[in-house]
Order: sequence, then C-alpha cells, then structure tokens
Amino acid sequence: MFVSVETAPTPQTAVSRPHQPGSVGLVRRQYAHFDTPLQLGSGRSLPSFTLAYETYGRLNADRSNAIMICHALSGDAHVAGYHTTTPDEKPGWWDDAVGPGKMFDTNRFFVICSNVLGGCQGSTGPSSLAPDGKPYALRFPLVTVADMVQAQRHLLDQLGIHRLFAITGGSMGAMQALQWAVDFPERVGAVLFLASSPRSSAQHIAFNETGRQAIYADPNWNGGNYYDGPAPAGGLAVARMMAHITYMSEHSLEHKFGRNLQDRDALPYTFAEPEFAVESYLSHQGSKFVQRFDANSYLYITKAIDYFDIGAEHGSLKAAVAHTQCPFLVVSFSSDWLYTAEQARMLVEALEATNCPVEYQHIDAPFGHDSFLVEVDRMTSVVGGYLAHLTRQSDRSGARVGVRYVR
Amino acid sequence: MFVSVETAPTPQTAVSRPHQPGSVGLVRRQYAHFDTPLQLGSGRSLPSFTLAYETYGRLNADRSNAIMICHALSGDAHVAGYHTTTPDEKPGWWDDAVGPGKMFDTNRFFVICSNVLGGCQGSTGPSSLAPDGKPYALRFPLVTVADMVQAQRHLLDQLGIHRLFAITGGSMGAMQALQWAVDFPERVGAVLFLASSPRSSAQHIAFNETGRQAIYADPNWNGGNYYDGPAPAGGLAVARMMAHITYMSEHSLEHKFGRNLQDRDALPYTFAEPEFAVESYLSHQGSKFVQRFDANSYLYITKAIDYFDIGAEHGSLKAAVAHTQCPFLVVSFSSDWLYTAEQARMLVEALEATNCPVEYQHIDAPFGHDSFLVEVDRMTSVVGGYLAHLTRQSDRSGARVGVRYVR
Repeated sequence: MFVSVETAPTPQTAVSRPHQPGSVGLVRRQYAHFDTPLQLGSGRSLPSFTLAYETYGRLNADRSNAIMICHALSGDAHVAGYHTTTPDEKPGWWDDAVGPGKMFDTNRFFVICSNVLGGCQGSTGPSSLAPDGKPYALRFPLVTVADMVQAQRHLLDQLGIHRLFAITGGSMGAMQALQWAVDFPERVGAVLFLASSPRSSAQHIAFNETGRQAIYADPNWNGGNYYDGPAPAGGLAVARMMAHITYMSEHSLEHKFGRNLQDRDALPYTFAEPEFAVESYLSHQGSKFVQRFDANSYLYITKAIDYFDIGAEHGSLKAAVAHTQCPFLVVSFSSDWLYTAEQARMLVEALEATNCPVEYQHIDAPFGHDSFLVEVDRMTSVVGGYLAHLTRQSDRSGARVGVRYVR
Repeated sequence: MFVSVETAPTPQTAVSRPHQPGSVGLVRRQYAHFDTPLQLGSGRSLPSFTLAYETYGRLNADRSNAIMICHALSGDAHVAGYHTTTPDEKPGWWDDAVGPGKMFDTNRFFVICSNVLGGCQGSTGPSSLAPDGKPYALRFPLVTVADMVQAQRHLLDQLGIHRLFAITGGSMGAMQALQWAVDFPERVGAVLFLASSPRSSAQHIAFNETGRQAIYADPNWNGGNYYDGPAPAGGLAVARMMAHITYMSEHSLEHKFGRNLQDRDALPYTFAEPEFAVESYLSHQGSKFVQRFDANSYLYITKAIDYFDIGAEHGSLKAAVAHTQCPFLVVSFSSDWLYTAEQARMLVEALEATNCPVEYQHIDAPFGHDSFLVEVDRMTSVVGGYLAHLTRQSDRSGARVGVRYVR
C-alpha cells in the first residue's frame, strides 16, 4: 500500500530567525502516497491517493504521544511554524496552539496534521491529476468525512502509530475526530471536540449551498474545468466572504468595525470602492482566499460537511457513540451561531446517555465560531488542562479516564 | 410639482373570485409623477421621479385615518389583494395584515404603500429611463432612507393627507417609519416599528456587501449596463439565497427541512442537482426572485439600508428621537438574528430617555426575521391592539397617547 514518504524528522528548534518564542520553527510539508484503491462512502473508489502532512515534536519510544489535529474547511496540514526564513511569513493556521509549552505542547506530544482528501494543499483532490494525466475536476468522486478519516488511517499506519493519545479539531476538524472515535475506537485515546456538531444542520447546508452556487455562477468555473484557464475567483471570493461572516459574531464585527468608514471622513455614496471598513475587510478576505484555495476543493469539502450526520450512519447518535471507547472533551462557545452550543450538547447528551466519559465546557466568548482559534488563553487552559488530566490518568492506570461532566 | 396621478378609487369588495374572505379584492397599481427636482442626501438630485403606489380602504372625511406601510428590501407597493382574476395569482406581500377585519383593518383605515425610490416596481430607480431616454443604470444617484421618505412626503401631499394616523413597516420599512417621525414629526400620529434597528450594524453591511459582490461578479452585470441584454441573474440569485437564510432562523430551517433529501431516499453524491430539500428550496427562492427584481435596484436599496443610522444624522440616537412627537410601538422577535432585540431596544431606550411614549413588545417566535410576516395571529393581536388603543386615545382627547412600556 505504502509507496513513499519523506521521513526526515522535522526540525523543531534552534532556528535563527525573528519568530516568536514557543514556535516550532522551520517545518516542512511531507507527502505519503498510497497506491491501493480507497473505497469511498459514495460507492466509488480512488485508485490511489496522496496525503500531505506535517508533524511537530517527536514521537516517543512507545509511540504513545501522538495527537492528530484535523483541519476545518479552509485549513491545511500547515498547523504551526514556518516554511521559509522570510521575515514576514505568517506561521501555520493554529500556531498559537502548537509548540513548546503551548496548548498542544510539542515538548510532550508528537503532533500530526494532514490535508484532507479532496483538499488542495498537497493531498489528492479535484485539482490533482487523474490516472489519465489530466486534472480530475468534477470527475473526482464526492468524499465524506468518513472517507477523509479512512485516508488518515492509512497515514497513521504508515507512520507506525497504532493508537493516538488524542485527536482534535474545530468545526469540520471535530467531525473527523468524532468519526475516528466511532470508526476506529481502539485507535483513539481521547477526542477533543471543539466548536462543532455531530450533524450538519439545515442552516449549515443552506450556507454551504449558497457558497457553491456562487462558484457555479462564475463563468470561469466552466463545470469545474478551469485548470488550464482563469479560476472562478469571483465566485469563490463571494463564497468566502459569506462564510467569513458566519465565522464571526455580530458583536465581534461590531466591535472590530462598527460603522467605521474606510479611509475617509464622509460617505462618498459610490459603488466604485468600499465605503465601510467592514466591506474592505471582507473584500480582503475574499481576495486572499482565492490565491490559496481551489474552487473545486471548496465544493467537495463543503459537500463532505453537509453529508456529515454521524448518527444517521448508525441509526441514532446514541448508537453511533456507543461504538466509542474513549473520553471526550466537548467545547462550545456562547457567540458561535454557526456551530451552536445546542448542537454540541446533542453530542454531550448522547455520550452521557451511553455512559461515555465526557467533559463539556461552554465558554463565554465574543468571537463567534472563530473563538476556538482566537480565545488562545482560555483554550490553552481548557484543552491543556484536559490533556494534563488525561496524562495523569494514563500515567496512573493506563486505563480510561473517569467521567467529568461540567456545564 | 404634481403632474398626474390616477385617482380612481381602488375597488375593495364584491369581487366574485375564489379568494380568501377578508381580502381587499382586486386592486390597481397607481402612479404619481413629480417633475420638480428632488434633493438627495448624497448632495445630488433627481430631476423628476415617479412613485408607484396602492391604497386600500377609504380615506375618511377629515383625512385622519391614513396608515402608511413602508416596504422592506425586496417588497413593493402591492401589499394586499390581487391585480387580476387569475385563480392562482398570489396576493400582495402582506395580505395577511391588510384587509377588512385584519391587523390594518380597511373598514377603518385608509392604507397606503408606495414602492421606494430606487426600486424596480414602478417607482423611479436605476432601471428607469433618465432624461436622455436611456436607463439610468449606475448613473442613478445613490439614495438614502431619508430620500425615500422625502419622496413619500410628496406623495402624501399629492393625496391631500397632512397627517398619518400611523406609519409602519418591518425591517427597512421600519427604518422609513422612524425617519418619517424624525423628519416630519407633525405629520406622523404613531410609529409601529417592527423587526428593525435604528442603525444598520456591521453584520448587516457585511451581508449586504457580500450580496452586492455576488452581483458585481456576474459578467452579465457589466458595470450595471445590462438592460439591453441578459440580466445578472446568477449573481442576484446568490445574493437572494444568502439573504433568505438571514431572514429565517436556524430552528425554522431545521423544522421546515432538517436534513431531508430532495425527492429521493438516498444521497446521490452529485453536484448536478439539489441533494437536500433545503438546497432545492433556496434555489427556488433565488429563481423566483430574479424574475421579479432588478439587480441594480438590489444594489441601491441595500446601500440605503447600510447608510441608515438615524442617530448619526443628529449626533446621537437620543437627539434624533427628541424630534419625534408621537407614540411608538416597537416590536422585536426572539429568533430574529438579523435585526436583533438588542437593536430594537437601543431605540426603545433612546425613546424612554427622551420621554417619548413607547410600548415595547418582544415576541417569542421561532421564524427569525420573517416572524413579522409569519406570526399573523400574534401580530394582529399586538398591532391591532395598539391601533385600537391609539384610536381610543385619539377619540377621547385628540392628544398624544400615554406611555405604556412593556418588556
């Protein structure tokens, strides 16, 4: 199955550059290729696939300190650190959380993140070449969160890790973590389920579908066949702008921008340029995104989110979580209106009802869905504290940690 | 100033067709043309303009029973009744509220609604012909809610009505009603302010701007010059789909659609057609809308909403409402996350602080922003009750009604 993988250890320290203390420093994207067919939830299969991934910290001798981080819709394998020594390079998307002494302490843990199947940052997706040497485009099969997890399982096998100390992610990342615990219960030591839902709601599907329609409506999209021409940047930017609003709260938008005008003292009354600061901000978010993301991948990954309903696969949510064998930390945020506390509590209640060990933390935070990325100090306390608790339990007994249920 | 107006009374009754009881029956769109320049908030002016309007009920002898209804973003002058005898014709957009015995009882009141300036349903807007005989398109000046109200004031003059018994609307309609009370206090007997805000928030602007970007991104938009070719239907449909989500609550979407599939028992895993019922519903909403609405009008009206901040015009919200001379009914809905109760309370508190008579009703309702249209029975009770209260007060003294403040 395994074809090749770059196994050089990722440098962690002693990088002489002006990055913040606690950084994992210079890191490198690695690739794992698999040439056996991957059976997919849709009934179709992929003849072969590649996962791009990064790792931080060092795997210990008994291979028991691995934490897998699963990324959300627009994320990638580059969680922390830097790819170059360019002074103004931004670090990975969750650099605040991964590094020496951080929430996921790389002095203790070996952290892995791979780009999802269907993605566009090195893993096989619609922009990859099909066996005929041309980009898959829409010939790429629709994938599910369970398919993403199947692919990650191959990566874990290849890395020689049987059991994860823990698996985590926010949003779609948490969906993958939950799917792991249901599909491979013996391989998951704990799930840290952040700002997510066990089931995409009608509103999730509605927003995702509107984003997809924005892409479809861009003539450059051309039925998905645009890889030899201009990309459907206009449609993708609109999708991203809309999604970005859903990641923030009304209050955080108000606090950050209010009704401030963009670089002016009086309204110009024009369509020609942004009048309000929030318009300029959104436009910037859209422009940045289209430079790094493939529109077809956006279609595939939003579909995977829409399909996610772990209970439906097993008849009920309780029946699904009855398969799990590990403790859960479930975290929701008061201002997150995309993945609401009510949705997180559906999972908490199903876990409780099946006597699964669960700790639930509802954090009062103003930043909407993005709180899981923005509330660094509180997340470090909650997640770091939970990992310390798991470590103590595991040091003591090697057994399951007990139930702690906190509302 | 006045040029012409069709003054034939609107037929109210005795229409032999299978419409529901309580209907105003067959009604007719009328037009008022004004050929003196209208000075606009932007500093520009319109050389002449037309307002399309409808009326229901009969103006009484002392012209004291007129209620003006102001419509929201996608509304028009056709509030109630039918334009034809076609059996499957749908009635006006607030037919539930206007008619004999209804919330706005046409046995008692003379109800007026005009299409806003900048609109596309008969009033002058970007799709109208400029003096050079070609459509204005983006040569049409940006308009504000205050400009819309100025135009309506001309209509009221022309109808020979000095003072409105009350003025009302939901969403942008309520903005106009508030603007009326501030700009023409002697002409407004009461304001019924429904599901709205005295000030568009950063989130409102963000959603509106994303909708505009969807239109700009449609190549058929062509800088607004599309009136001799295909309209930017794809972009406008995306804008509408997104907006439609904001009009509903997560719960109402969940209740109405959940994760139901569209006309099938199993997921087909395809982009080619709607998979979930909510996708089909949104797509239908988008398609319907582009058949009746002009994309440039959508741009102009969303801008007017974004500009709305009645406090900013006067230094503060308190200073603005200190100009008013009438009682207010303010209504918010628990599940309305677009125009939140908190925003409505900003107005209530400013009114209280300046000793303006205000009654505030916060209604627990699951339908999101659309609650003001959907919660017919409760709205009839609240609004009808308030109008009855106003009537009693006005019969007794002709003076201001007292303060009733209900949380």
